[in-house]
Amino acid sequence: MNYAARLARLRAALEENDLDSLLLTHLPNIHYLCGFTGSAAALLVTDSGSILFTDGRYRTQAREEVSAAHIVIVSKSPPVAAAEWLAAHRSGSKAVSLGIEPDSMTVALRDRLASVLKGKARLRSAPPLVERARMVKDAAEIQRIRRAVDVGASLFPIACQKIRPGASEVAVAAAMEFEARCAGAEAMSFPTILASGKRSAIVHGRASLARIPRRGFVVCDFGVILADYCSDRTRTVHVGRPSADARQFYAAVLEAQQAAIAAVRPGATAAEVDGAARRVLRQRKLARYFTHSTGHGLGLEIHELPRLAKGQTQKLEPGMVITIEPGAYVPGKWGVRIEDVVLVTSSGCEVLTPSDKELVII
Amino acid sequence: MNYAARLARLRAALEENDLDSLLLTHLPNIHYLCGFTGSAAALLVTDSGSILFTDGRYRTQAREEVSAAHIVIVSKSPPVAAAEWLAAHRSGSKAVSLGIEPDSMTVALRDRLASVLKGKARLRSAPPLVERARMVKDAAEIQRIRRAVDVGASLFPIACQKIRPGASEVAVAAAMEFEARCAGAEAMSFPTILASGKRSAIVHGRASLARIPRRGFVVCDFGVILADYCSDRTRTVHVGRPSADARQFYAAVLEAQQAAIAAVRPGATAAEVDGAARRVLRQRKLARYFTHSTGHGLGLEIHELPRLAKGQTQKLEPGMVITIEPGAYVPGKWGVRIEDVVLVTSSGCEVLTPSDKELVII
Repeated sequence: MNYAARLARLRAALEENDLDSLLLTHLPNIHYLCGFTGSAAALLVTDSGSILFTDGRYRTQAREEVSAAHIVIVSKSPPVAAAEWLAAHRSGSKAVSLGIEPDSMTVALRDRLASVLKGKARLRSAPPLVERARMVKDAAEIQRIRRAVDVGASLFPIACQKIRPGASEVAVAAAMEFEARCAGAEAMSFPTILASGKRSAIVHGRASLARIPRRGFVVCDFGVILADYCSDRTRTVHVGRPSADARQFYAAVLEAQQAAIAAVRPGATAAEVDGAARRVLRQRKLARYFTHSTGHGLGLEIHELPRLAKGQTQKLEPGMVITIEPGAYVPGKWGVRIEDVVLVTSSGCEVLTPSDKELVII
Repeated sequence: MNYAARLARLRAALEENDLDSLLLTHLPNIHYLCGFTGSAAALLVTDSGSILFTDGRYRTQAREEVSAAHIVIVSKSPPVAAAEWLAAHRSGSKAVSLGIEPDSMTVALRDRLASVLKGKARLRSAPPLVERARMVKDAAEIQRIRRAVDVGASLFPIACQKIRPGASEVAVAAAMEFEARCAGAEAMSFPTILASGKRSAIVHGRASLARIPRRGFVVCDFGVILADYCSDRTRTVHVGRPSADARQFYAAVLEAQQAAIAAVRPGATAAEVDGAARRVLRQRKLARYFTHSTGHGLGLEIHELPRLAKGQTQKLEPGMVITIEPGAYVPGKWGVRIEDVVLVTSSGCEVLTPSDKELVII
């Protein structure tokens, strides 16, 4: 990854936004900008350079991971140390304008920084400059996402093999997660969702000790983190012979998902893609059971910009990687969700996850 | 869990702190107070009752989990909906005093709430009332932690079996995590640390694709979440015949850990326990290699109050559950950490993790 180039682009954006410096505290943004993956850090980006503040636990790790920023090991809170450094090193007597990340910085930390800086710097909530940069992936990132998606895809056949009436949901998840680890995944990208029978109506139904019933849907939503990048995929299978009603329900969600994928192209807004899925479910009288957004960006984090939801005016651009995952959930009865990861290309999109989406019957 | 009693105690604390209401946004605190485990929620506690705000994805789940608070399903950000509800339902024209959680609320959310509330409520950073309540575990919580610790303990023999020269660190972690899942764990309580050879000097050395060398320490730090509660345990083993130097290094860390455990009793401060470990390592000329604190509380979260570190004046009380985990790390050479979970009792403490800590040689 070309961290120096990312930092240089950010420095240019600071100037456009009238900021002298930016204090980064959101760890995935720090990771993106300089490669550091520890759990305590602040990255101070000024017009003259970048400094990573971290603590003694990460002395060795920071040296191994970071070359694009100067490293300072501190024994106090890294952002507080960064503010003290800034106060001590500003040139002239004018207060500098210091950007902070309002979507991740806590109120307590902001208050603490203000008291450390007194009049020496004005804190300003910066726009999400790094999150915006992260929306469009470069070639190296897309390659990593492809690999993560491939490992993620390899888990679904295991789910199909382990899903049986009477098996616990968690036993299925355990087998999938073991395979992911053996394939080198650092972790799952979120707690594996394995929701069977009536539990399939719970949108975020984490694998539980519940036993898979003789008949009904099983929603499997899972992803891995491989070489720092996330994958995400949902398939819904049916245990036992599905009723005509169940088949129709599944077909409606699949049609909505395909309509949304067909709407993905450069220049389309995030809301248009969301609307394409919603329109199909409205025609099928299922709109009120579709209770979440159609998708999200993914990369270093499982949820990134853009958000594919009503009112989102963000235009899609080549290099964005997004999920397309409409679903419908009838409380107490059943639920279906189908999700792929999609790369926006110059002419439309490429579905990165394997595309077979016929209803699997177990 | 007696959620109604927890909410009643919090309501009493509000009055003592001159707050009319408290808006809880830290999810583990919401979980503690009313049982809700979803990923989007705000809990508004007023003198007349408690209301959980969540979104449509959690309609079914909230009904299953929550009985001590009224449930409101919203289609916007739950804390913003809570603020609007408060503005609409306050009695009289006087601005109410609304506490927020400054250690978890973001600057962006605080600004948003202030603009929603205008003059109708004054936002005030509340002290960590819920975190303080959570420090002392009740009988039901201690029982859950014991079970989590037992399942956690069952993973170490698997590590010993899988750690072999040439095996990848991640393959060892995979086997441990599979066992945890099969035993019903919801997840690991943090990314499994498996740091072998020179990597053992990396305090947070997550299991990597690195191969275990023929000779050297392997730090294994791992825990599970079982029925919502976390376990945590570290053991360091040695592959191949340890040098006299390695044995001495291990013995020093073990002595420091035992000294800290011996210092745990009601009335002792967190700093005293930390100091007991540090003193031993200072005598062994290893103080500068002990680069983190001696331990932390654990429960619904892997890191809770109290913090066992220099300057921490918090006194230990019966019912607190803490880790004792000194370590020493020589960059580029090796590292050792030994960790147990300890329950503070009326007369001293009980070590919950199995106590055998002789150096295991593989």
